[in-house]
Amino acid sequence: PMRARGLTLLLTTCAARRTLPGLVSVAPSAAKSMSSSVVDRLETPALLVDAEALERNLDLCRESLAAFAGVALRPHAKAHKCGPLGALQVQRMGARGLCCQTVAEAEVMVEAGVADILITNQCVTPGKLRRVLALRGHAAEGLTHLGFLVDSADQVQLLVDALAAEGGAGPSVPISLYVEVDAGQGRCGVAPPPASEAVLELARAIHAAGEATGGQVSFGGIHCYHGFLQHVRDPEARASAVSEGPVRAAAASRDLLEAHGLSVPVITGGGTGTYLMECRGGVHNEVQPGSFAFMDGDYAANVGMPDFTQSLFVLSTVISKPSSDRAVCDAGTKAVDQLSGPPEVRGFHRDPASSVPLSGGVTYKCGGDEHGILLGDGVATLRVGDLVLLRPSHCDPAVNLFDQIHLVRDGAVEAVHPIGARGPGC
Amino acid sequence: PMRARGLTLLLTTCAARRTLPGLVSVAPSAAKSMSSSVVDRLETPALLVDAEALERNLDLCRESLAAFAGVALRPHAKAHKCGPLGALQVQRMGARGLCCQTVAEAEVMVEAGVADILITNQCVTPGKLRRVLALRGHAAEGLTHLGFLVDSADQVQLLVDALAAEGGAGPSVPISLYVEVDAGQGRCGVAPPPASEAVLELARAIHAAGEATGGQVSFGGIHCYHGFLQHVRDPEARASAVSEGPVRAAAASRDLLEAHGLSVPVITGGGTGTYLMECRGGVHNEVQPGSFAFMDGDYAANVGMPDFTQSLFVLSTVISKPSSDRAVCDAGTKAVDQLSGPPEVRGFHRDPASSVPLSGGVTYKCGGDEHGILLGDGVATLRVGDLVLLRPSHCDPAVNLFDQIHLVRDGAVEAVHPIGARGPGC
Repeated sequence: PMRARGLTLLLTTCAARRTLPGLVSVAPSAAKSMSSSVVDRLETPALLVDAEALERNLDLCRESLAAFAGVALRPHAKAHKCGPLGALQVQRMGARGLCCQTVAEAEVMVEAGVADILITNQCVTPGKLRRVLALRGHAAEGLTHLGFLVDSADQVQLLVDALAAEGGAGPSVPISLYVEVDAGQGRCGVAPPPASEAVLELARAIHAAGEATGGQVSFGGIHCYHGFLQHVRDPEARASAVSEGPVRAAAASRDLLEAHGLSVPVITGGGTGTYLMECRGGVHNEVQPGSFAFMDGDYAANVGMPDFTQSLFVLSTVISKPSSDRAVCDAGTKAVDQLSGPPEVRGFHRDPASSVPLSGGVTYKCGGDEHGILLGDGVATLRVGDLVLLRPSHCDPAVNLFDQIHLVRDGAVEAVHPIGARGPGC
Repeated sequence: PMRARGLTLLLTTCAARRTLPGLVSVAPSAAKSMSSSVVDRLETPALLVDAEALERNLDLCRESLAAFAGVALRPHAKAHKCGPLGALQVQRMGARGLCCQTVAEAEVMVEAGVADILITNQCVTPGKLRRVLALRGHAAEGLTHLGFLVDSADQVQLLVDALAAEGGAGPSVPISLYVEVDAGQGRCGVAPPPASEAVLELARAIHAAGEATGGQVSFGGIHCYHGFLQHVRDPEARASAVSEGPVRAAAASRDLLEAHGLSVPVITGGGTGTYLMECRGGVHNEVQPGSFAFMDGDYAANVGMPDFTQSLFVLSTVISKPSSDRAVCDAGTKAVDQLSGPPEVRGFHRDPASSVPLSGGVTYKCGGDEHGILLGDGVATLRVGDLVLLRPSHCDPAVNLFDQIHLVRDGAVEAVHPIGARGPGC
């Protein structure tokens, strides 16, 4: 199966790389050289996205939801923080809108024309609340929905205070508040029934805030997501954990609210590792996959995923070749996030037209903030100036290190997109 | 001993925080509130530097070198990537110049008026070499020295090619090339004598390049640094490793060159953990400490260091308080690099004027890209909206996540400095 097409074929793939589920080897004979438009224009380290692989991932995700007619798709923009990619996702996938994790991401996505935003996080500082309210000014340009999460009445009150400080009736788009329910992750979220009735109290507080503000606050529904389950490797264990965790917690929360006469418009959650399991659970009616667009080493180690392809790479240059079995490249921890493990070495290229034949394995070892140490037999033929293609272990924080995404198609840079919301989470 | 002054006193220090060597507890009674200029103006996560602590660190480092008259100081700008802080270091410390790790850092430091730059890295791509050569245009504004490292003749030739591509004699500042000698780290660098005579061959190649280019290339000396030794905890073990590693390798390299009639102007190396040991070794005549300006958890765990104080913090907001023993703040892995371990929780603050009394310990647990989970008895009194002060485990990559440094003095923001060279190492 030729899954690893596109960019992977632009470079001679490292012959003996680690084989992970979901990856296949590419015969060196299939390699073609990277065009001069890539080699000459890009300074390394650079962040590359294989446009074809990205588009296949978007299409595959959309198609994977065809069997679940009642479930809407809301891809997560925290993976890319990039306005043009967010707009592409909505358009090409027929997505309801986007998830954002920060107010900065919401601003960038609205600016890119995305009409429906759910910030899957609590907004509590005066500055962030002001910025969220200011986004409603885009109603005239088509903004239809804007929401964020709460897990205590304090947060609802902070929003009401911010609205009062603003004065006046405000624009027509209300702020939809979603009750975050802890599905077992032990991070944010109220405890689900039957352990507590906090979800009911909070939904009532939101409705009361709606009345007190003349409809400027509305009850959006329930957010029930479990991040740690995304990377449970075994698909049966993962499915079982999703049933016992987010699906069960969401159902109990919905049942409690409905028993008290409150309807629940949206039950949202799920990520790249589990979203089809939430779909099968029959409770969630909106899912939030994000990393599927890029994929990374951590997700590639999962079993039983849709056939998503790696599309994200870090391009690096060999700057030193101190011995026959060691080379050093210019991508360290400031270019490739390594908290989830070192990147995988995917290929090499030598300017201008010749690829580098490799006869053995190459592994990446962390060499500090600005160095990667390449070890193994396959290093023997490398020279200073050769290019190295790395696959990050975790796509979101790796993307966050860069200011730009280079979209590459057929060996040429098709577009350079700003990672407009890059930053520490403001 | 009142070492933890300044910013630490602005917040009520977490009473039962982990005690690391080099840290002392601050009595809650000593706490004063953070002024409104900090609380109101800063959106979290924000990067704070305690101006007093920073200045004490700069002074202490300068003073620590007083006993070594023949050793020049060249602080490393990779820790801050910030032009104004680089200029401050040179001015206040009487430093010879600065080290940079990337061309972008060199550009920012030259722009800030720093006259003497050593890029402690190989520069091999055509784009980076063009940018290095372009920096010589600052000669009229006072630039006196510009250098980088090589560990193969290929790299020397790449520079010669870049000079030829530029044509003409070029500005008056030559490019000083330093031979990087591997002091045992196994990253870049030629093997030191007696294992090889590569250092001699390379120094000769540099001299030849100088002749071939009409003096546009010069031999700067030897770079002999061992990064991994910086964090050997025990001072005797660290001193011994420095003697056997960088000092021995530098001496052997110098002796070989001098035996063949080549003088060695500069022998440079050493970081915050070892620079006084290189001084005592009597071979290095220039040292490169960087992290001493900020300090971090990893360096604080070293024993036998000069009395440097923590000056770098990440300010975060409590966004959720799901239970009495758990709170969630808005600083995750995109705000605090955690490859060297989780940050330390240093204090809390409640707007507008009251600090939060704490009766127990608080620890930080990674909650993903945008969340930190605060656990422990001390969390009980925290509320949504409270501020949390975190100390990063590794200062350099934590700084690299932000665009600005907020310099704080007496509870007020004194200056906001751009982290002009922030990025993946271009």
